[in-house]
Amino acid sequence: MGRAPIEFYFDFSSPYSYIASEWIGALAARHARTVRWHAILLGATFQAAELKSPVSHPIKREYSLLDFERSARFAGVPLTMPQPFPIATQNAARLFWWLNAQNESRAIAWARHALRAYFTRGVNLNDPSALAGLAQEFGLLQGEAEAVWNDPVWKARLKQENEQAIAAGVFGAPFFVIDGEPFWGNDRRAQMERWLEKGPF
Amino acid sequence: MGRAPIEFYFDFSSPYSYIASEWIGALAARHARTVRWHAILLGATFQAAELKSPVSHPIKREYSLLDFERSARFAGVPLTMPQPFPIATQNAARLFWWLNAQNESRAIAWARHALRAYFTRGVNLNDPSALAGLAQEFGLLQGEAEAVWNDPVWKARLKQENEQAIAAGVFGAPFFVIDGEPFWGNDRRAQMERWLEKGPF
Repeated sequence: MGRAPIEFYFDFSSPYSYIASEWIGALAARHARTVRWHAILLGATFQAAELKSPVSHPIKREYSLLDFERSARFAGVPLTMPQPFPIATQNAARLFWWLNAQNESRAIAWARHALRAYFTRGVNLNDPSALAGLAQEFGLLQGEAEAVWNDPVWKARLKQENEQAIAAGVFGAPFFVIDGEPFWGNDRRAQMERWLEKGPF
Repeated sequence: MGRAPIEFYFDFSSPYSYIASEWIGALAARHARTVRWHAILLGATFQAAELKSPVSHPIKREYSLLDFERSARFAGVPLTMPQPFPIATQNAARLFWWLNAQNESRAIAWARHALRAYFTRGVNLNDPSALAGLAQEFGLLQGEAEAVWNDPVWKARLKQENEQAIAAGVFGAPFFVIDGEPFWGNDRRAQMERWLEKGPF
């Protein structure tokens, strides 16, 4: 009998989600688990829980910008904070769900490709031409990406996924669920490892 | 030449501060450092940075209550979430600063005593008679604690300490500063250890 997959909620504009995206696959594999990736919009979850971005106020913003890069170095993940930041990511997320409907591995590959492009090369995922170019680089046909993100079907799908995430208790990203147990944040990695090794604690 | 102390900002009603209070002394000692404890009021720092308590909204509250206890178990620290929670802690903090003016070690002992009383025995630090009783148990004379927390001198001192913390960039608790580098949260322990072992990274 297979073990339940690890649920992994992320936003394409979340530095801590990007860092986690670089270790979650190997962590899961070491414990014979798979990962079910969920592209969501942090704006939607923040609104539902009446929260704000950690960079919305100067005092916390200054610390957060330092901590994003330090946490990446600590995890051994390359990260250069992009400009602009944060950005709207609905188009990248709609592409994710479109790909996911065809092939889950391909959607994960897109997520990793786009997260790395934004957080290491500064490719602005909210700029239609930059995103279309990235999608072609990834292997989509010319015009295909734009058609997907303008399609009401994939707009509705992303909206539905956000609603399901909120209903599941997700209020930030990265957010993980293992065997029904929620873990919020890149910094819950050690607790997740213990859970995967030894079960509930 | 001695190394700079680790600055440690905490609130008596913060579960993550309590957990950190149980490991910060040993961590510092392993690296030949001392710890300078700062009792502050999270309400003041939240207001300055336009933040809210993690338990102010139901979605985040449910997760946070689970995570407080799980993070304590993960750290090997006994914690039973008290009722009521959170509470106002200005009186316990004024006592801390009064003790600190006489003897820093004694103030730290008070902080540990009061944090443990609230988070393991549910002693309500916002209840004047419970707090006075705890102060006597700690060794203060009858009536001494009340006189301190009603004294404008110690009210002003706590206010000043809050303002200094905010000016230093503190927006939550526990908050640490090592060699000028800020670390926010019980979950930055591993990064602090690396900093103490190997310096800036």
